[in-house]
Amino acid sequence: MSGKGLEGVVAAATALSLVDGNAGRLIYRGYEIGDLAAHATFEETAYLLWYGRLPEERALVQLRTQMAEQRGLPESVISSIQAHPRAADPMSLLRTAVSALGSTGACDETPSLAQAISLTAKIPTILATFHRYRQGLPALPQRPDLSHTANYLYQLSGEEPTTSQARALEAYLVLTADHGMNASTFAARVIASTLSDLISSVTGAIGALKGPLHGGAPAKVAEMLAAIATPEQAEPWLRAKLERGERLMGFGHRAYKTEDPRAVALHKLAGELADTKDAPWLALAYQVEQIALRLLEQYKPGRKLYTNVEFYAAAVLRGVGLPADLYTPTFAASRIVGWTAHVLEQISDNRLIRPAADYVGPLDLPYLALAAR
Amino acid sequence: MSGKGLEGVVAAATALSLVDGNAGRLIYRGYEIGDLAAHATFEETAYLLWYGRLPEERALVQLRTQMAEQRGLPESVISSIQAHPRAADPMSLLRTAVSALGSTGACDETPSLAQAISLTAKIPTILATFHRYRQGLPALPQRPDLSHTANYLYQLSGEEPTTSQARALEAYLVLTADHGMNASTFAARVIASTLSDLISSVTGAIGALKGPLHGGAPAKVAEMLAAIATPEQAEPWLRAKLERGERLMGFGHRAYKTEDPRAVALHKLAGELADTKDAPWLALAYQVEQIALRLLEQYKPGRKLYTNVEFYAAAVLRGVGLPADLYTPTFAASRIVGWTAHVLEQISDNRLIRPAADYVGPLDLPYLALAAR
Repeated sequence: MSGKGLEGVVAAATALSLVDGNAGRLIYRGYEIGDLAAHATFEETAYLLWYGRLPEERALVQLRTQMAEQRGLPESVISSIQAHPRAADPMSLLRTAVSALGSTGACDETPSLAQAISLTAKIPTILATFHRYRQGLPALPQRPDLSHTANYLYQLSGEEPTTSQARALEAYLVLTADHGMNASTFAARVIASTLSDLISSVTGAIGALKGPLHGGAPAKVAEMLAAIATPEQAEPWLRAKLERGERLMGFGHRAYKTEDPRAVALHKLAGELADTKDAPWLALAYQVEQIALRLLEQYKPGRKLYTNVEFYAAAVLRGVGLPADLYTPTFAASRIVGWTAHVLEQISDNRLIRPAADYVGPLDLPYLALAAR
Repeated sequence: MSGKGLEGVVAAATALSLVDGNAGRLIYRGYEIGDLAAHATFEETAYLLWYGRLPEERALVQLRTQMAEQRGLPESVISSIQAHPRAADPMSLLRTAVSALGSTGACDETPSLAQAISLTAKIPTILATFHRYRQGLPALPQRPDLSHTANYLYQLSGEEPTTSQARALEAYLVLTADHGMNASTFAARVIASTLSDLISSVTGAIGALKGPLHGGAPAKVAEMLAAIATPEQAEPWLRAKLERGERLMGFGHRAYKTEDPRAVALHKLAGELADTKDAPWLALAYQVEQIALRLLEQYKPGRKLYTNVEFYAAAVLRGVGLPADLYTPTFAASRIVGWTAHVLEQISDNRLIRPAADYVGPLDLPYLALAAR
């Protein structure tokens, strides 16, 4: 019997990303994640993951245009979103709205790059449409002049984001677009391996990301940062928590035995943006991190707990004004690139993913009629 | 690296069902599938899979009552179904409607038996509501006096099924309620392992079942039986097909190296019902099977191709009057029992299912600015 959770079992070959937990490296198609977070846009990163190479200028402009054109939703999907209770969980809403796209004819076929682009373009619109609707506000028109990232923030709030906000969210989306064979990506590949459609794979992946063991923790870090509120209160707050033997959210990761390269990239960006005054949450996170790492060394010596991506994810997502229940859906808005790229890779050389099970139940029980039981 | 498709890799321990491909046995919780198909109702089988033992009379009556009470759909889900294009694929529709149930508050929590029962009760209603709607017909009220199986057929057509019809469909539902670690069940467990909700797991499983490598073949057998039409035409029709080197649908199965015990059970039932005159499709299938097996022995000697469950599934599903595009959704209406039982088993002793991947892409590529590419 293999280890529970298939830990260490190779489920597929992939040319998309390498998670090197011992070296603290994350690579997309050969490129270090730190380089991409510092220099590449979300559209450029999506191109890289989908097509296998960085785009030249013309190809990038073309993808940007294509994505901007695909942002709109079919009427039936808008109605479906607005038929939801306003209190609906946004991950449930996203799962249902994406599934509903499958009945509009566009995506209910063999998975293709065109469908991947269309779905990626539409997810922010789904989230913004629901977020406006639940506040009793009308949906806002697309802004084709804005990038994918900036348009998402504009559609949520009606305001153009500041440069720091757009840059921070863009870096977050780039850093979380793919991450090896995580549970949601694996779910997408299992579904794709039956030769089902892309919508089915993505719907399943959203359902997996919804689980707190996978996509659910940044909101708890945001609560912590909100409770700390100012750099001065960080040390007493964190010390009290550690004295009570409680866990600090945002530190440690199953895959990384050293620094999480995504946290390193966001740490660097936070340092750069700390003085711009419109990124106070990043500045707070930057200062809290230093104190937390010092205290963790003191209270849990030898445990080597490093900052993980969720720590800074919380700072970025709160910093750009997102409510906590849109953090995981916004994670989905970036990971959709990885999911779709993995589905296309899976079907390019497919075999049905059907593992075995160890039967541990009884055998040879005689069936007794109801009256004889 | 493990075999592609995780073939032979044990992904979990299960006490739910044993697929013994070499011996041609399928066992639910210790009971031979043939015994269950001959004697147990769908509700009784669901009880067995969910609770781990056959029910006594009082417990069975209670489950029947509970399921009958849970058949109704929330208004928002009915609206969502009726917002679909009439030409929507019923599997997409089912995936979306089940997902929409997740926003009605009832199921968006830790998976439970009560949710499993509710979902199982509602799936036939979803399918019948859509099937009536797409024909421009009003939905029919529930018939709490009818069993789960008979009520499904009643809600589709407005007519009570004959005894043979109800018995044949019931046997089909019992036989297909679980089948080890198949792709849709595995997808459900991967999603559940993130501690996501039951709706997310089931939505993913429906997406996997939608794939033609998993749930999609009975319709092709039905086409074959429709083309053959009478027992007299079976031999020339099948012979011509084999002469052209084409594959006969409904024979051979990846998991079974000998007879598929589900096909054996339906073969037996078909023999019993063949003379009742209201099961002509089962009678036709019974006769076509004999001829097909004889011809396969002649045209593919030594290949040992046995009748699989889809051969008789087609005969049953067509025989009870279902249109071809409701075959796979009706499969979902039985497999929901296995999916939900597997999810509950998974979370009873959970570990996140997160396998490894072999990275086969490039490394250490230098990031070049756009202008320099």
